[in-house]
Amino acid sequence: MRFLRLSDRYLPILSWGRDYNRATLTSDLVAAVIVTIMLIPQSLAYALLAGLPPVVGLYASILPLIAYAIFGTSRTLAVGPVAVVSLLTAAAVSEIAASGTADYLTAALILALMSGFILLFMGIFRLGFVANLLSHPVISGFITASAIIIALSQAKHILGVEGGGDSLVAIAGTLLTALPGFNAITLAIGTVSLLFLFWVRRGFKPLLLRFGLSDFLAGLIARTGPVLAVIAAILAVAIFRLDHQGVAIVGKIPQGLPPFTVPIFDQDIWLALLPAAFLISIVGFVESISVAQTLAAKRRQSIDPDQELVGLGAANIAAGLTGGYPVTGGFARSVVNFDAGAQTPAAGAFTAVGILLASLLLTPLLHFLPIAVLAATIIVAVLSLVDLETMKENWAYSKADFAAMAITILATLAFGVETGLIAGVALSILLYLYQTSRPHVAIVGQVPGTEHFRNVDRHDVVTSPHVLTMRFDESLYFANARAVESRIQKEVAERPEIKHVVLQCPAVNFIDASALESLEMTVQRLKSAGIDLHLSEVKGPVMDRLKRSHLLDELTGRVFLTQHQAMRTLDPETTLKADKMVRPEIAG
Amino acid sequence: MRFLRLSDRYLPILSWGRDYNRATLTSDLVAAVIVTIMLIPQSLAYALLAGLPPVVGLYASILPLIAYAIFGTSRTLAVGPVAVVSLLTAAAVSEIAASGTADYLTAALILALMSGFILLFMGIFRLGFVANLLSHPVISGFITASAIIIALSQAKHILGVEGGGDSLVAIAGTLLTALPGFNAITLAIGTVSLLFLFWVRRGFKPLLLRFGLSDFLAGLIARTGPVLAVIAAILAVAIFRLDHQGVAIVGKIPQGLPPFTVPIFDQDIWLALLPAAFLISIVGFVESISVAQTLAAKRRQSIDPDQELVGLGAANIAAGLTGGYPVTGGFARSVVNFDAGAQTPAAGAFTAVGILLASLLLTPLLHFLPIAVLAATIIVAVLSLVDLETMKENWAYSKADFAAMAITILATLAFGVETGLIAGVALSILLYLYQTSRPHVAIVGQVPGTEHFRNVDRHDVVTSPHVLTMRFDESLYFANARAVESRIQKEVAERPEIKHVVLQCPAVNFIDASALESLEMTVQRLKSAGIDLHLSEVKGPVMDRLKRSHLLDELTGRVFLTQHQAMRTLDPETTLKADKMVRPEIAG
Repeated sequence: MRFLRLSDRYLPILSWGRDYNRATLTSDLVAAVIVTIMLIPQSLAYALLAGLPPVVGLYASILPLIAYAIFGTSRTLAVGPVAVVSLLTAAAVSEIAASGTADYLTAALILALMSGFILLFMGIFRLGFVANLLSHPVISGFITASAIIIALSQAKHILGVEGGGDSLVAIAGTLLTALPGFNAITLAIGTVSLLFLFWVRRGFKPLLLRFGLSDFLAGLIARTGPVLAVIAAILAVAIFRLDHQGVAIVGKIPQGLPPFTVPIFDQDIWLALLPAAFLISIVGFVESISVAQTLAAKRRQSIDPDQELVGLGAANIAAGLTGGYPVTGGFARSVVNFDAGAQTPAAGAFTAVGILLASLLLTPLLHFLPIAVLAATIIVAVLSLVDLETMKENWAYSKADFAAMAITILATLAFGVETGLIAGVALSILLYLYQTSRPHVAIVGQVPGTEHFRNVDRHDVVTSPHVLTMRFDESLYFANARAVESRIQKEVAERPEIKHVVLQCPAVNFIDASALESLEMTVQRLKSAGIDLHLSEVKGPVMDRLKRSHLLDELTGRVFLTQHQAMRTLDPETTLKADKMVRPEIAG
Repeated sequence: MRFLRLSDRYLPILSWGRDYNRATLTSDLVAAVIVTIMLIPQSLAYALLAGLPPVVGLYASILPLIAYAIFGTSRTLAVGPVAVVSLLTAAAVSEIAASGTADYLTAALILALMSGFILLFMGIFRLGFVANLLSHPVISGFITASAIIIALSQAKHILGVEGGGDSLVAIAGTLLTALPGFNAITLAIGTVSLLFLFWVRRGFKPLLLRFGLSDFLAGLIARTGPVLAVIAAILAVAIFRLDHQGVAIVGKIPQGLPPFTVPIFDQDIWLALLPAAFLISIVGFVESISVAQTLAAKRRQSIDPDQELVGLGAANIAAGLTGGYPVTGGFARSVVNFDAGAQTPAAGAFTAVGILLASLLLTPLLHFLPIAVLAATIIVAVLSLVDLETMKENWAYSKADFAAMAITILATLAFGVETGLIAGVALSILLYLYQTSRPHVAIVGQVPGTEHFRNVDRHDVVTSPHVLTMRFDESLYFANARAVESRIQKEVAERPEIKHVVLQCPAVNFIDASALESLEMTVQRLKSAGIDLHLSEVKGPVMDRLKRSHLLDELTGRVFLTQHQAMRTLDPETTLKADKMVRPEIAG
């Protein structure tokens, strides 16, 4: 039994595989066909975005999907090449090799393999919490900026010119220089594709509905838009031999099974790629888990984040061993998979078979596919990721979150994806520390007729002339220890008649060693001024730990369970009076 | 008036200068003489530690002290070269120039100047809070490890061999290689000095007391120990011409006023030194402000941290312009200054005059001073900084703080001061984020006969069968948003009879945009399961901000001022029963 449960945890396929039947098979097959049709142009296009030969995109869409189907916990996640991870791959690999060389391909394989090991390691040691350091504003800013960079980086293919760079300025610069040499036919193909694909997103489905198709069918057929564009463009190029007019085409794609690749172990290359592999792992995981959890919640299924790490790790290792590049769960394809009725991860495995057939049979047909069409596919896909709405909401709700999002966007655009993401994470952590380093402090008094104590500035409360009660609304730790110390000193200095200071601690969730030292110092200083320091409403876990320190021995005052108890003991007269007063309506 | 107050803030000298009289003058003069006697050997020794000519130590002890006397707020802080900052200087400068070259000296000047500008900038823009990121365990670990490295780095001078390196392993390695070539006379001088100086620390004062001296006088004379060692060693070398026997001596020190130096502006060097200048500024500030606040508290004076930044900034700019190197307020000398009765910063200015006289008149006498004696001075001074007691206390109180301290020590010893400090800060921030990412969550119930609600696991409380109340003991933000979301889902899943969930928020000090999104998601999910989500005891500032979001519109439940009010509304029957029960003793 124990073995069975363990294997169920690490091999989720065992649990859903047992109940597999004809009905689920049909649903999964239908979903797989639709996702395959969507994935063929996407995988070619994203490989192009990563600076890799298009066939690498196909390879990355075969074995990785099967690996995820075995180890992943999401029933509807569609794994494979995605835009943001492709961009991160390009940024990392182009640092150490030139696009188009064998070294570039090798580096991409290594990146996939390393990223796989990192994800697997994090999954086994349950380190998924690291992904929590990416706040929503940072993720959303990062994706928005990446989408803008990706769209602009594809503009060269629409114009039929050379270009490069990994920041907004660099890309725009090379683009402007190359602009005069644009190819008119390429530009025409690109523009028509763009217009068609944008129209497909908005107008195709309503049109099909008007022709009397069911909502479900119309939705599915609308998804074939990119494939229609691909077919039309191939025919146009092949018939009019536009490739002889300077239209860049995909060219010869090797036909056959994905190769078995063993990335070489060169310590320098591995070390150089390590930071990027880590970033790709985290970004890929965050993107994937968000989609997986959203979709799972809709069907009341559950996702195990640690096992997801294992599933994505296995997928990336598979990518590294079979000529692919880093993969993760993509948003758009997963939603399509879900909508098309996928019931189990088998749908992913069937998609892999579809792509395998395509790479065995269809590759000769893709010879004349113009690069401009692939670029248009990418641009249309990523522009839907630009999210400025969240920016507005953050501005209204929290300036710190707005700042984190804005800086992530600006730094990504100005300095590239890696710097942008790191700047965003660093800033959001610093802003959080800054916020907690200036804790909200309330001087509190008793709400008449109750045992509640509230902020003197917000409520009509009774205070004692001899007892000062302060409530620090924050855990006490190194970043605010000094501020707490000086705030107490300041308040005491302003009230010469004070004999007791009570620190009310319902919002103090822990006290670290730095804050403990500050408190001990405060006890000493107040003592020499003839003032006792008391604590009230200390939380259980905090109290447990204080018992292991010197503070309780050195404390001149007492620890009270409730603030009311403290006041009854330290100033019974004022408290009894307040107890008997009429309770105001607002204090409940 | 406004002008006066502003100038008082930026020029503290105006406020203490007004009341200056003969009594304070006498006290300040006495303290200055004693600190000068202590500072002469120390400034030479610390310059040596920084890899600089000894005279640079003297220059760093003249104008910087006057600058601090004008701009600083501490009345007793003794500014000048200190051990840890000297070590940081050596680590930074030796990266870009070889010790003994003119470039090395220039780099040290630039470092002082940059550090001065950084401190000044932080002071003017009130950015002193950055220093709060250094927790007590990290500071104490860093100083301990630095002291060990410093002591070991001086061993070569005691042995009379060559050596180098900036980590424990590197230093020990070069030392072991060079060991066979040790110089016997140097070793004898060094060992005798070490033994004498250790004895001075322990045995000199008791001896003087036994001779009938007053406690104060005995304490002061005991401070002259290092100077006595210096004099004895100079005489021994000069008389027996030990320098001809291979004993390294200070040699010719240029006599005269400190030079006026304008560090060249070379962008590459400035950029290369920037991170180090920042570290030195922060470390120097933290060391200085801790001493200043401790001493000020003893006399009920106050320290303005932002003005301290200005004071230290001015001191470092002065050091950079007059042939010095980075300075800060030192612990040992400040305590001596305080004990000797210094009343105002004028004592520092008088010390500067003392050092100026020394550099004008005494430098020829220092010619024969053996380096080994200076090394012994450093070793004895820094070994008193090794603090393993705190390590033990942290182990008992908090494993996270222990880990931060241990990693700081190990990383500093293994990889040098800069890496060590950064590793310590990064780890303590990560541990704090990790801690807050797994908030303590309590399911709470009503304490019978009261309006208090406590953890069901710790207290005997009454709960409702239809209402689940959870109390999250942490601010809700990006690092714990996902954990909070899934915890609520888990608890609800285990209780099918639940109709209402109340989040009691007395310990939630803020909710950021990521957590807000998680809460909105939770409201939607609970809604589709027929469960209402309520909030209770939301803090004023948190509520103010929630009013600017969509959450309150989307909330299926209500926001209650108190948890008791929530329960009276959602389950009046259970609550009324609990109200009438006998109040247990423990709950006050």
